[in-house]
Amino acid sequence: RFVSSSSSSSSFSTNFSYRQYLVSDLSNINLIDRSVSLHGWLQYRRMNSFGVLRDHSGLIQFILPSSMKEERQIFKQTPVESCIYINGILKKRPEKDINTNMLLGHLEIHVTDFKVINACLPVLPLDVSKYHESDESTRLMYRYLDFRRDIMQERIRFRSAFIAKVREFLLKHSFIDIETPSLFRRTPGGAREFIVPTHLQNGGLFYALTQSPQQFKQLLMIGGFDRYFQIAKCFRDETGRPDRQPEFTQIDLELSFVSRENIFSLIEQLLVACWPDKIEKIPFPRLTFAECMSRYGTDKPDTRFDLEIEHNLEQLSITSPISLNDIKCIIDDNDIQYDNNNRKFLLNKTDNEEECLIKMGRLRLKLADILEKQYKIELRKRRQWNFLWITDFPLFTPMTDDRTKLESTHHPFTAPIDQHLSLLSSKKDWSRIIGQHYDLVLNGFEVAGGSIRIYDSFIQRFILHDILNLPIEHLEHLLKALEYGAPPHGGIALGLDRLLALVLETEHIRDVIAFPKTSNGKDLMAQAPSQVEQSELDYYFLQINKKKYH
Amino acid sequence: RFVSSSSSSSSFSTNFSYRQYLVSDLSNINLIDRSVSLHGWLQYRRMNSFGVLRDHSGLIQFILPSSMKEERQIFKQTPVESCIYINGILKKRPEKDINTNMLLGHLEIHVTDFKVINACLPVLPLDVSKYHESDESTRLMYRYLDFRRDIMQERIRFRSAFIAKVREFLLKHSFIDIETPSLFRRTPGGAREFIVPTHLQNGGLFYALTQSPQQFKQLLMIGGFDRYFQIAKCFRDETGRPDRQPEFTQIDLELSFVSRENIFSLIEQLLVACWPDKIEKIPFPRLTFAECMSRYGTDKPDTRFDLEIEHNLEQLSITSPISLNDIKCIIDDNDIQYDNNNRKFLLNKTDNEEECLIKMGRLRLKLADILEKQYKIELRKRRQWNFLWITDFPLFTPMTDDRTKLESTHHPFTAPIDQHLSLLSSKKDWSRIIGQHYDLVLNGFEVAGGSIRIYDSFIQRFILHDILNLPIEHLEHLLKALEYGAPPHGGIALGLDRLLALVLETEHIRDVIAFPKTSNGKDLMAQAPSQVEQSELDYYFLQINKKKYH
Repeated sequence: RFVSSSSSSSSFSTNFSYRQYLVSDLSNINLIDRSVSLHGWLQYRRMNSFGVLRDHSGLIQFILPSSMKEERQIFKQTPVESCIYINGILKKRPEKDINTNMLLGHLEIHVTDFKVINACLPVLPLDVSKYHESDESTRLMYRYLDFRRDIMQERIRFRSAFIAKVREFLLKHSFIDIETPSLFRRTPGGAREFIVPTHLQNGGLFYALTQSPQQFKQLLMIGGFDRYFQIAKCFRDETGRPDRQPEFTQIDLELSFVSRENIFSLIEQLLVACWPDKIEKIPFPRLTFAECMSRYGTDKPDTRFDLEIEHNLEQLSITSPISLNDIKCIIDDNDIQYDNNNRKFLLNKTDNEEECLIKMGRLRLKLADILEKQYKIELRKRRQWNFLWITDFPLFTPMTDDRTKLESTHHPFTAPIDQHLSLLSSKKDWSRIIGQHYDLVLNGFEVAGGSIRIYDSFIQRFILHDILNLPIEHLEHLLKALEYGAPPHGGIALGLDRLLALVLETEHIRDVIAFPKTSNGKDLMAQAPSQVEQSELDYYFLQINKKKYH
Repeated sequence: RFVSSSSSSSSFSTNFSYRQYLVSDLSNINLIDRSVSLHGWLQYRRMNSFGVLRDHSGLIQFILPSSMKEERQIFKQTPVESCIYINGILKKRPEKDINTNMLLGHLEIHVTDFKVINACLPVLPLDVSKYHESDESTRLMYRYLDFRRDIMQERIRFRSAFIAKVREFLLKHSFIDIETPSLFRRTPGGAREFIVPTHLQNGGLFYALTQSPQQFKQLLMIGGFDRYFQIAKCFRDETGRPDRQPEFTQIDLELSFVSRENIFSLIEQLLVACWPDKIEKIPFPRLTFAECMSRYGTDKPDTRFDLEIEHNLEQLSITSPISLNDIKCIIDDNDIQYDNNNRKFLLNKTDNEEECLIKMGRLRLKLADILEKQYKIELRKRRQWNFLWITDFPLFTPMTDDRTKLESTHHPFTAPIDQHLSLLSSKKDWSRIIGQHYDLVLNGFEVAGGSIRIYDSFIQRFILHDILNLPIEHLEHLLKALEYGAPPHGGIALGLDRLLALVLETEHIRDVIAFPKTSNGKDLMAQAPSQVEQSELDYYFLQINKKKYH
């Protein structure tokens, strides 16, 4: 039944297949001078006799002997990237012919049987070799060919292995893998959620695609599951925001009877267990939100370099380590001055301190880019991993369009710190309340966020209704659930796509997702989204009204 | 940092928590006469002094000594299912007081500290103990309380462990775990797909929620991934069909360079590795579709009992093993007669042989039910697992409403058997073509289905366009992909929910899904689907037209 059990190979990779070997199996010294067969793709062909077969495990050279006249005729017309079969004797190449650019460059197969399984079109829309990367839209349009490139094989295989390690760690620590629904109802106060029409009750009823399993994981804690995790698909209608996807993946988890310290420790050990490089600083450094803003002008600082914001009496400043010739491309704000003698960028403080800090934070990043690119000063080492916890965010933030109203800084289920519970009783203190939210930052990117949750129904209702003025009828089930002996609980969600993009050093998260959409939500390969037939719309009691939205 | 590392417990379950022990940790003999603390729920209370604490690992009795006057007052008013904390000395109970109904009935805690963490409402809408099961709609409405029942904890935890084993097996055999999109475009010729409106291009463009990762897994094979799997969320708008869910989970996999035999062997070994009981018959028995229909009158026979259909010259019959008194409740068809002398049910054959067989197949199941329930004849043993492969289905089936037209028996990507490829050239032979589809049946339920796929672009186009008359513009990307050296490939998808319902012997698949919907697609807990605000619809350029659909 198993090809490999009748051969000398012990590879699990060709079990359950009529394939005999993968290329990587051929490094087994016992196979030399023996007959081997392979299925793969024609990577390269020279004339009518010499070729290179590729599978995901490697490359192997092969030669059609002059006796195989008919096969040579066929071979000569076989386009690269055709799916082929070869059988032959595995030979060591003569010393002088060893191809040192190939892992198995000292081997070749003297072919005794050759078949074209499925011919490829003679012209390829993108280059499958590693020497040239096509533009991204071509790669997305022909994703199946893009996958044949080594780098894409590596990325997608790394993703699978990384997730496997995450699962292994969490299962070992008694987490339960629980799937939660994607079709649910709208959660007020969050990101825009896709809606899904239903045929029920003659129309007008919609599911919302869940933007995160937040409510479900809290309900699971109330149900006594203690430790939940899920590699969770999440949906948000954020079309147009750069490097976002309408669907994305989170490592989502929640525990009962935990403190912030517990969660920090858990995530640190999880990442140490799964990260391909050694992580130097354990536990991860921490900054409060206030200190972080004050020093870096952002809540997700890249701490691989300093260039911190200096606070003077009436000014903020950042000092460049060297004198700069061209400062125009750094300063995007007329209020910022450059003092050439002291190599300082200066900004006069205004009433809106946060705005000033954010300006300086942006300048700090630009300065770093220029120093690296134009002045060749290495600030950020490759494969240096600066993880950083940000804590002590304000629980509420004034709304942008009406600063007398408050919204949740993160989400309305985050608990205040115990010492600030009493501040809930007085409206004027609300904006001072510190929440038990935490973000994990890596090299300037937010890679995780979580909080200790509210488990008291009264407080949750008060915050939702009295402070945030949200329509609580959407959340009655959660408020009710908290009344049945809900345990204290907390959790976190790691942005898997972003984490992988960082560890694999890709430019976009699209490069670590098998079938991503463009930044405006399009699938270029299949042309989704697309129009649907009128009968579809009728079934859902819908019609399109192009003029409606302004 | 770890509570447990400072104690004698080696449990991974209380790492990353301020909890000291789970109840199950207390079976450790070294803890007797030592101080222990626990967090859990009050399962039972007697008077002001005796209680039982529950967590998911077990139950433990505790006693508040008479010295704790204040705590006894509080305890007396604590409703069951409140979340509580106790600290005390773990003691062996006197021989006479041992509760033999509890695993740790020989132990009790003499409490030194007691706290109510979060009180429960005094009246519970459903019974959390194991003695009484509430009606299903109450259980769904208060799912978080339903979860506290032992049986639900077991089911959801079993599901997690089962999936972990499936993953372990597949990863070991070089399968890559790849997430594929849920937001895609419509696949013609399948189940009804939910549509998701987008804001793009002033309305009118929709995603479809993928009914299965079929196209993606084929594209991954074309991309050279060789072995893919995914525990895949799938969506179908099948509201109203009993024991179906609008979203459900498949163990989905695909391999390149495989035969049907390879897939059978893979799935047999996968199930042996993951199944909690020993599976007796390996390899699984097989039946062709034709033989299966002829003997059982269905393509998913329960082979735990015989009662096979007998074929006589002009009649079909089934023989009852015993004489029956009441045959009315078995026969639902006037054409079926009962011959009391020979204990035979008889049906005269008609031109529509399949219809006759299906009638007899239905009768066979009813007869089995009656024999078991009314005559106490055991036909189906508990935990007997009759797996069965069904093969050799016709590739095409006449459409119900126009029998001159053909549709795919399963889906349009299934390959014909090699010997029948030539029949494609003549229209009159199309209905005779046997496809390389296979179903896996367990105890009368279809638990998996798959096929060897078409990898030739020309044949695929011919079948889609010329035979099935499907709108191929929806599938141009797949047809194009097949032209670039697609490898031969095949796969299968196992219905995880159904598989778990069978192995856990639950009545519905809803019992093995954490947050299921009712058979008409409603979430009773959160009341989804629900109405959305007009502004939501406007954003998607939609309006509701109640009169449109008839």
